[in-house]
Amino acid sequence: MKLEEYNDPSILKNYSKAQLEELGEDIRHFLIEKLSVTGGHLGPNLGVVELTLALHHLFDSPKDKFLWDVGHQAYVHKILTGRADQFDKLRQYKGLCGFPKRNESEHDVWETGHSSTSLSAAMGMATARDLKGTDDHIVAIIGDGALTGGMALEALNHIGHEQTDLIVILNDNEMSIAPNVGALHSVLGRLRTAGKYKKAKEELEQLIKKIPTFGGKLASTAERVKDSLKYLLVSGIFFEELGFTYLGPVDGHDLDDLAENLKYAKKTKGPVLVHVLTKKGKGYEPAENDAKGTWHGLGPYKIESGEVVTKPGPPSYSGVFAETLKKVAREDKRIVALTAAMPGGTKLDVFAKEFPERMFDVGIAEQHATTMAAGLATQGMKPVFAVYSTFLQRGYDQVVHDVCRQNLNVVFAIDRAGLVGADGETHQGVFDIAFLRHLPNMKILMPKDENELQHMIYTATQYDDGPIAVRYPRGNGYGVKMDEELQRLPIGKWEQLQDGTDACILTFGTMLPVAEEAITQLNSQGYSIKLVNANSAKPLDEELLHDLAKQGVPILTLEEAALQGGFGSAVLEFFHDNSYHNIEVKRMGVPDEFIEHGGVSQLLEEIGLTSANVSEQLMMMLPKKRQRA
Amino acid sequence: MKLEEYNDPSILKNYSKAQLEELGEDIRHFLIEKLSVTGGHLGPNLGVVELTLALHHLFDSPKDKFLWDVGHQAYVHKILTGRADQFDKLRQYKGLCGFPKRNESEHDVWETGHSSTSLSAAMGMATARDLKGTDDHIVAIIGDGALTGGMALEALNHIGHEQTDLIVILNDNEMSIAPNVGALHSVLGRLRTAGKYKKAKEELEQLIKKIPTFGGKLASTAERVKDSLKYLLVSGIFFEELGFTYLGPVDGHDLDDLAENLKYAKKTKGPVLVHVLTKKGKGYEPAENDAKGTWHGLGPYKIESGEVVTKPGPPSYSGVFAETLKKVAREDKRIVALTAAMPGGTKLDVFAKEFPERMFDVGIAEQHATTMAAGLATQGMKPVFAVYSTFLQRGYDQVVHDVCRQNLNVVFAIDRAGLVGADGETHQGVFDIAFLRHLPNMKILMPKDENELQHMIYTATQYDDGPIAVRYPRGNGYGVKMDEELQRLPIGKWEQLQDGTDACILTFGTMLPVAEEAITQLNSQGYSIKLVNANSAKPLDEELLHDLAKQGVPILTLEEAALQGGFGSAVLEFFHDNSYHNIEVKRMGVPDEFIEHGGVSQLLEEIGLTSANVSEQLMMMLPKKRQRA
Repeated sequence: MKLEEYNDPSILKNYSKAQLEELGEDIRHFLIEKLSVTGGHLGPNLGVVELTLALHHLFDSPKDKFLWDVGHQAYVHKILTGRADQFDKLRQYKGLCGFPKRNESEHDVWETGHSSTSLSAAMGMATARDLKGTDDHIVAIIGDGALTGGMALEALNHIGHEQTDLIVILNDNEMSIAPNVGALHSVLGRLRTAGKYKKAKEELEQLIKKIPTFGGKLASTAERVKDSLKYLLVSGIFFEELGFTYLGPVDGHDLDDLAENLKYAKKTKGPVLVHVLTKKGKGYEPAENDAKGTWHGLGPYKIESGEVVTKPGPPSYSGVFAETLKKVAREDKRIVALTAAMPGGTKLDVFAKEFPERMFDVGIAEQHATTMAAGLATQGMKPVFAVYSTFLQRGYDQVVHDVCRQNLNVVFAIDRAGLVGADGETHQGVFDIAFLRHLPNMKILMPKDENELQHMIYTATQYDDGPIAVRYPRGNGYGVKMDEELQRLPIGKWEQLQDGTDACILTFGTMLPVAEEAITQLNSQGYSIKLVNANSAKPLDEELLHDLAKQGVPILTLEEAALQGGFGSAVLEFFHDNSYHNIEVKRMGVPDEFIEHGGVSQLLEEIGLTSANVSEQLMMMLPKKRQRA
Repeated sequence: MKLEEYNDPSILKNYSKAQLEELGEDIRHFLIEKLSVTGGHLGPNLGVVELTLALHHLFDSPKDKFLWDVGHQAYVHKILTGRADQFDKLRQYKGLCGFPKRNESEHDVWETGHSSTSLSAAMGMATARDLKGTDDHIVAIIGDGALTGGMALEALNHIGHEQTDLIVILNDNEMSIAPNVGALHSVLGRLRTAGKYKKAKEELEQLIKKIPTFGGKLASTAERVKDSLKYLLVSGIFFEELGFTYLGPVDGHDLDDLAENLKYAKKTKGPVLVHVLTKKGKGYEPAENDAKGTWHGLGPYKIESGEVVTKPGPPSYSGVFAETLKKVAREDKRIVALTAAMPGGTKLDVFAKEFPERMFDVGIAEQHATTMAAGLATQGMKPVFAVYSTFLQRGYDQVVHDVCRQNLNVVFAIDRAGLVGADGETHQGVFDIAFLRHLPNMKILMPKDENELQHMIYTATQYDDGPIAVRYPRGNGYGVKMDEELQRLPIGKWEQLQDGTDACILTFGTMLPVAEEAITQLNSQGYSIKLVNANSAKPLDEELLHDLAKQGVPILTLEEAALQGGFGSAVLEFFHDNSYHNIEVKRMGVPDEFIEHGGVSQLLEEIGLTSANVSEQLMMMLPKKRQRA
């Protein structure tokens, strides 16, 4: 049967081991081939081929529910549930989502993108099942990296206490996005090396039987020795202590071993943790030998050589950030860099090479990273937490309560701010302005290009009056000339790029080229438009805004972020707080909806953030002004 | 020496045990007496008298740094560091803060209010120390309840991995705010009952020596048996597995036991966890025998009888919420209630009495609670998460990513919305409108009184098109007549309370009486003011706003919440999005600063949310309108 014909996964229930193995091989070839064109999360999916087959072989989806933590490892599941034919448009506009999506299939019961949510969701589903009295199995599949996220630990704790029937599959591939950090990881390391624990256990059980007993007291002590064997030999104790039945370690590429343990898990009452060892990239050599995490998620590549297709281009914003930080750190010993499991994505790996002792990868733990930064700042250090906009959401309370409230000098380098494209709605970085702007003491900057970014990063590290956020987009800069010397920018002083008398466009960051193009169109029609690089959403450039208000021209604000409470709203608030009640302001940005995956330019088109629309919107304001004049 | 004379805690370094014990007794009497008048967190502070004395006896504050997790147990520390004379104004306006406060004393090195932050902050401070090469000790004191918070677990994980020198004191009093839940708690329970573990350990060590060895292989197995003794006898393994040296359990009211273990901790390299058993309320019988958590934090009480002084009054908002939910749950089997360790504060304990199987206290774990609610909702249940506004901050990413993005029917009952008073800046519930309003699919309601609240809660539970938040203040309602029958309110349909032709006040929730009083003043001057109970910040009542815009009168918005991105901003955005560029709007609410502790009315006065100021602000708009007319 061709992969494109798989639709109902229940067909796998009668498959022999040989058939499943063959199917697994087909899936591997399919993934390696398809993703070489579209890109995607190759490594994680090659790692869970057998696990996914075993799950669909033994459970009844969608009655039984699979929750894929983070979700980028659900490709095999998507193939088995009728979506193989959509892989040519994987992660593309209107195409197959790279993560589970409830509107794609009834087999996708839980949507994700951020890490560590699956256990809590599984607990919710299992609780609903128990209240309704049905008997479906709830299976959460979570990686060892995702397990370091605080909410996963909160959930383990609660599930263990309630003794709810559910199955957690710990997909232990030793490397999440970057090599995991954290003590939990070393616990898992010990589990992994436990190896032939069953044999050793039998041996020791024999030994214990020979321990002499001296009356009741010591007999019971001996009993305790026996009880503790499982603790002794395999440190499954960590999970056992939390109230889980621990099964494993299981060879995640051995269908028999998987089947044996999953069957047992299915029968076991209470929460079960099945510890499955898998290899990321299994079956494709370049991905198997991936030390740097390149094959976790990537663009197109050449199958034969394993060469990743790269387009030469200007430096990335992340790269400029990291290089700048390195430069500043050479002079400024206060600087410490933090990342939550994203040393590669944020390019802090570059920083770490020169300053290993001043760089901390805390694991998937944005809350801890934020407050650790606050702790560093209380001691006069200058912590820089580089974090994707969407992931900083998880540290919101810590930003409020620990950083802003204590007015500590923490720098937030907010990467992937704005639309990110292929990763889609769970990853769009469009809320950070709105969730930071209302926080007292916070400053929010965004550069117009990579040259301004380097100055902003420098400025932020030298700023000594509280928290400051510099947001910048995913991808490459424009290739503008980079100044040799770093400059300290005045904060809250915008840059007028063009003067004009009919209207004014205020752009926050990335939207500048769109504005420039729109202005060119309007110039050709005889309009004169002022253009301002409004590089700070908080504070605003009040002097410039007062001048604008007095000038009385219509104003258009432009930002690649949620409109409600965003930069444009700040401008509105300013005018009304200062009793300018007679100014036309049009705000353009991301509307009140979640934006799906697709190319960034396609998405901008969809939501109207194009030069054509900008000029159209301005035109609608201009005639009115002329009539009044 | 009188307690008011204590200033430099180093004086304690030379105190004998007898002197410390006497001082401890003085402190207990002082606390019991002072707090009987002011109220405050009596139980937690009586529990840490000896611990605090021992810390100041053995460490050098402020060179050595004490981080009090949550912070409400720092009274003894405050007394010893020169603040005994300020206890008459504890938690009062411009008086002593109920939590550590850096501007009060150099001995307060870390501010808190929310739980579970101390380990991350300690890690930051210890890292700074190591980078700077100084030798101060960092000591985090965290309760067993706070340890269930995900960020504390993230920090344990990272600290264990880095093997940083720092001391964690686990203040295990078995009861945080309510009896703890979670498996971690049962781990601690096992530790507590381990009792005479030292003796047992010696006994077993003797036994192990007698185990016969059969060649190298089994000898090494026997070695492993020996290694595991500490695991076997005291389940300190949980922390040992994470890389901590575990010391304890220590009797937290025995100064010798404390001193012995703290001295050892001071000498130990790497992270140490000292497990200290304390009794909340120690030394004051009513507080010691507190099963319901009454004595955790409370108002004035009578010392002799232990009778808590209560003022009769209208039902509290929390109470109305819980009673309504109970009523609805009788008919609607889909309803499930969740709390994060606040069954008493949210009054869900009332709900739990009738529906124990439909109520989940997940521990201090707002992230997990939010996503568990999302999981419940995917299965057609109707989860209601009752949570204080300030604590929902910790579930922000889960609200975005899991609830709103999947548009799930989760009800957020946001308690303590607005200013909360004595708990101060860490607890003010002023950001929720701003951090929820930009989220697609979210609805945000707030009632004008407790009668409207019951209808709103009913309405929210019956709403079937995604997430909905109902926010309500701390404290009692007005004593208005409660309708017998619950009504489904139209969402986004505001209530015009008074008509008027000169101006309009839009109030969101609690500010209604202030508006009414202001209007009375203005009426007496001949003005006619329209008053609208704008009970939904999202969606807005667009019909009403269109009408208002056409009417063209000045508008004043009034909310007890952060102004930036808040309700008033939503109104501004509406007018500009609909091209009404000529409307005077004045927004009143909480300015861009953190609001300290004090009586709510004092705080409202301070920030200008008074009827006098409302009428003044309106007056400033009214003449202008007259001139134009």
